[in-house]
Amino acid sequence: MRSLTVDLDARSYPIHIGAGLLARTDVIQAHLKAPLVAVVSNETVAPLYLAGISSALRDQGVRITEIILPDGELHKDWQTLNRIYDGLLNNRCERATTVIALGGGVVGDLAGFAAATYQRGVPFIQLPTTLLAQVDSSVGGKTGINHPLGKNMIGAFHQPRLVLADTDTLKTLPDRELHAGLAEVIKYGLVRDASFFDWIESNMDKLLARETGALTYAIERSCINKAQIVAEDEREAGVRALLNLGHTFGHAIEAGLGFGDWLHGEAVAAGTVMAAELSRRLGWLSSADCVRTTALLQQAGLPTQGPALGADRYLDLMALDKKVTAGKMRLVLLKGIGEGVVCTEIGANDMRAAIEACCHG
Amino acid sequence: MRSLTVDLDARSYPIHIGAGLLARTDVIQAHLKAPLVAVVSNETVAPLYLAGISSALRDQGVRITEIILPDGELHKDWQTLNRIYDGLLNNRCERATTVIALGGGVVGDLAGFAAATYQRGVPFIQLPTTLLAQVDSSVGGKTGINHPLGKNMIGAFHQPRLVLADTDTLKTLPDRELHAGLAEVIKYGLVRDASFFDWIESNMDKLLARETGALTYAIERSCINKAQIVAEDEREAGVRALLNLGHTFGHAIEAGLGFGDWLHGEAVAAGTVMAAELSRRLGWLSSADCVRTTALLQQAGLPTQGPALGADRYLDLMALDKKVTAGKMRLVLLKGIGEGVVCTEIGANDMRAAIEACCHG
Repeated sequence: MRSLTVDLDARSYPIHIGAGLLARTDVIQAHLKAPLVAVVSNETVAPLYLAGISSALRDQGVRITEIILPDGELHKDWQTLNRIYDGLLNNRCERATTVIALGGGVVGDLAGFAAATYQRGVPFIQLPTTLLAQVDSSVGGKTGINHPLGKNMIGAFHQPRLVLADTDTLKTLPDRELHAGLAEVIKYGLVRDASFFDWIESNMDKLLARETGALTYAIERSCINKAQIVAEDEREAGVRALLNLGHTFGHAIEAGLGFGDWLHGEAVAAGTVMAAELSRRLGWLSSADCVRTTALLQQAGLPTQGPALGADRYLDLMALDKKVTAGKMRLVLLKGIGEGVVCTEIGANDMRAAIEACCHG
Repeated sequence: MRSLTVDLDARSYPIHIGAGLLARTDVIQAHLKAPLVAVVSNETVAPLYLAGISSALRDQGVRITEIILPDGELHKDWQTLNRIYDGLLNNRCERATTVIALGGGVVGDLAGFAAATYQRGVPFIQLPTTLLAQVDSSVGGKTGINHPLGKNMIGAFHQPRLVLADTDTLKTLPDRELHAGLAEVIKYGLVRDASFFDWIESNMDKLLARETGALTYAIERSCINKAQIVAEDEREAGVRALLNLGHTFGHAIEAGLGFGDWLHGEAVAAGTVMAAELSRRLGWLSSADCVRTTALLQQAGLPTQGPALGADRYLDLMALDKKVTAGKMRLVLLKGIGEGVVCTEIGANDMRAAIEACCHG
């Protein structure tokens, strides 16, 4: 088991990464405020792991409420959030009840937002079961839901008390989900960790073959990067914005196609190519590094071209993103591999050209 | 103008109380993060004050979005909250947009929760226009909405940057709303400020006659009490719970009748009588002080008996309240006037007897 800490003073918490961790309900129990738990999962993940966790916790004297949601980004909305509230209230969950998210990014974001807002906030634990959730969304306290007009538009910062990333769960993960998680792994290399990027290039075969050692290392190094950034800038006043590389373009893809058509990581991959291409056009990223970026995403089984929504539609959707300040879009671009920068002065024509160069059709 | 501060370190903020303050848009502007504002109001309050505030702010170069909600506790729900999100998104409000609540407690709670959760949190200002909002709900950062199964069950702590309480708005307040606000004023006297209780007894005629001096004093002293408690215990881990005197019984009345039938302050008044009666039965409050409490609430034009829901229905609804811990109800009772205490060990039979003694029929 590998362990690290997200350093946020009184709200610091551990991340443990390793095989078989979902069986470590003793670790979960040590982080409960009271022997009261509500596990939120989805129809895909619950049948695999929920019964084991619930029965082990029950044996330890914990009262369990189970709340099972439909699977998919499409359901990251008000209606599904209200199913969590209904479950919590119908089972008389209290302020001392710990909400546990068992699933991928969507379950974590929904359960985390419910935990942030149920009775004005209850304790929260993340048990991420997808690569994307283990390397990114379960760490850092971002929670929320989508609005028809934009992704993650409604939400809260609510840090978990514990993150347990069981690498065994990746064995049953569909290929498409594994690849989507790799998009966020590659992101850390691109924005701040060039030697990690090199490592990913050298070890992509092992990652795709799901070698436990390689996956564990990739998760740990991703979490180290994320934990450093979150400790420095919890509420994204500055450096945390770097982690949005590819996300503004990506959110436009997700919203433009309707949430759930592309996976989040897939949209981020195509968005990252657009950001790299725009960086190249601005003379910031060399053509060789732009090619390396696209090639690595492609090697990871990810799309490197966006859907043909039309550049104007992209710009329109991007203008709705949370990263707009004083009417100006904030984009994460690259000055090199391992060197992300936040930019606000990019012209629409440059954006349009980069989008058009990276779209189908 | 009277001014005081809620002392919360970096999140400290001023409360200004006085006549004509809604015209002081310069004070509002000084607390904006950017010249971007979304004013949330309701159909009753907006026609009275919104045009003046918006045009003054526009003259100062501020971009204004106006969001008008239906009036009443009945609308403190998901549907109405989503109208705020829709308004914010359709008008491309950003993270730097300040949400301003112009209205009573319902508008403040809804707008505050929207501000807490829109793009994971934007700045917030309170312009309370009812006595209840000026003495209680606009101060301290509690925001939220009701769930069919319980009042304020979904919400967040989100402190405003400024509270401007314009006492002129009380001139047009319906009597019933004025009386409802007095329930919370009396509460401060009962739980921690016996000499204020005496003052209210001596000055009730002036308060009911809406004498500006008396109202301003009552608001200021209420806010001083609330600010002290919030500074000590922002998230209600301890002493802040005292401010829930009468609220657990009161929430049962509101939920039992359907939100909006009784005003919140009216339900709190009847609930306070129940708490006083229960305190008397436990031998904690003298009969004379119990009578004084009931008499003062009655003098304020408030109900001192609850609706005949049946004691078991009360207990059932109370068990759903947020103040339940480890299955035990937490009640605020009185050891004397000015001496509130939080109790968890009250037997159901004692509660039942107190409820039955204080209900119609």
